[in-house]
Amino acid sequence: MRNLKLTIEYDGKNYCGWQIQNSSRFTVHGSQKKSIQETIEKALQKILQEKARLIASGRTDAGVHALAQVANFKTNSNIAAEKLQKGLNGLLPEDIVITHIEEIGQDFHSRFAAKSKIYRYSVLNQPYPCALSRDRAYFCSYPLDIKLMRQEARCLLGRHDFKPFCASGSGSKTTIRTIKNISISVKRATLYSVSCTPIMIEIEADGFLYNMVRKIAGTLLEVGRGKFKKGHIKKMLLSRDFSLAGPTLPARGLFLVKVNY
Amino acid sequence: MRNLKLTIEYDGKNYCGWQIQNSSRFTVHGSQKKSIQETIEKALQKILQEKARLIASGRTDAGVHALAQVANFKTNSNIAAEKLQKGLNGLLPEDIVITHIEEIGQDFHSRFAAKSKIYRYSVLNQPYPCALSRDRAYFCSYPLDIKLMRQEARCLLGRHDFKPFCASGSGSKTTIRTIKNISISVKRATLYSVSCTPIMIEIEADGFLYNMVRKIAGTLLEVGRGKFKKGHIKKMLLSRDFSLAGPTLPARGLFLVKVNY
Repeated sequence: MRNLKLTIEYDGKNYCGWQIQNSSRFTVHGSQKKSIQETIEKALQKILQEKARLIASGRTDAGVHALAQVANFKTNSNIAAEKLQKGLNGLLPEDIVITHIEEIGQDFHSRFAAKSKIYRYSVLNQPYPCALSRDRAYFCSYPLDIKLMRQEARCLLGRHDFKPFCASGSGSKTTIRTIKNISISVKRATLYSVSCTPIMIEIEADGFLYNMVRKIAGTLLEVGRGKFKKGHIKKMLLSRDFSLAGPTLPARGLFLVKVNY
Repeated sequence: MRNLKLTIEYDGKNYCGWQIQNSSRFTVHGSQKKSIQETIEKALQKILQEKARLIASGRTDAGVHALAQVANFKTNSNIAAEKLQKGLNGLLPEDIVITHIEEIGQDFHSRFAAKSKIYRYSVLNQPYPCALSRDRAYFCSYPLDIKLMRQEARCLLGRHDFKPFCASGSGSKTTIRTIKNISISVKRATLYSVSCTPIMIEIEADGFLYNMVRKIAGTLLEVGRGKFKKGHIKKMLLSRDFSLAGPTLPARGLFLVKVNY
């Protein structure tokens, strides 16, 4: 059997997340939202005429976007990678695009082989919201102390118990993770005529807990607006008290950027 | 009475255009789409407790975006401009944002006072589409001769009868317009983690006919892919034959960028 590795870009807005959810929470216009996984698996089955089971680098939650999610599957088909990519992109809805397909060694497993992942959370901090990028960033109009946010963010670097940044219902065996890099950048940019100066919070870690990036971003914003004082994050990590965390920011600002193997 | 000038940004996707349309064509999930004008007028009425009639710089068609549409209206209200802006942005759906409000002289008329308007059409030209910017650009994967497109675009500069670039049903008295500037730029850019190299076709004119920018963009793409030869646009302008035009490209790639007064 061949082992095929897919790189996938998606706009998470209309999906219940990567994986199938058995919940009535995720509805659009009264009907249940689909998962990204089942949407791609159905398209694969149409082309290959056999069931395909995708293994992703990890789940992304409802509404979360991905620039380069990685997933692999095994198949008996001899279809050329490029032909499969074109076929899939022709069948898939416009908010899911396969950006690359390659054949990879039998042992490759998208989740177990992942060394680290990079997520970015985008915040739009200006007096009024932006209609054309409302689905790409969390909007807040209050002034933010970026310097202090950067200082506090640095406390998250390294191996810690991130339990206070984990939403309940995660089901992870351990809440210990290692953050390898964290940065906060503020840069003006223009794409498709839309000009903004988003604050981008980028985190690279060996793994992420349920809602971890969105809770870290929410906590850093509380630091930035002066609600949490200097030293707050250190206190959180020492006390392991999740009641000290800021709010979980909405999914629309979160992007899975890269999976490192 | 005070005369208030609004600058408005909107994502046109979910609207039948700036103005109210009496057509069943524009429906979302079976229900008729609203116009941007009526959406803002309703919000204004809620705040001002009086009917307000907006006069815009011009209509934009169904699905077309605006970075800075301009509209004015007269009111007896003494509400401060800043307070009205905040109130409107609180009431309006997320895909319409008032970016500026100012009081202006009694004689100012958004349409009659406009000296020129700038529109941009964005084309994404790469082997596969982009899920995260699918609503901001027209996607095409065939190779394009940008140099030839620029040469042909220059023929459009100046005062011409743009009848061959006008869709039927326009109702304009004259089809003569003056294009003051036209440019085609190709630049890699990143915003909210999304990286693309869109082709941007920017046109400044004293006025635009129905579907004019989308027809010009469609014709230039036919030039770029070699379907129309060098000299095609000159021939179109001389013959005034609208059967020589390329296709009208979809609204999703079109932005009203600026109105000059």
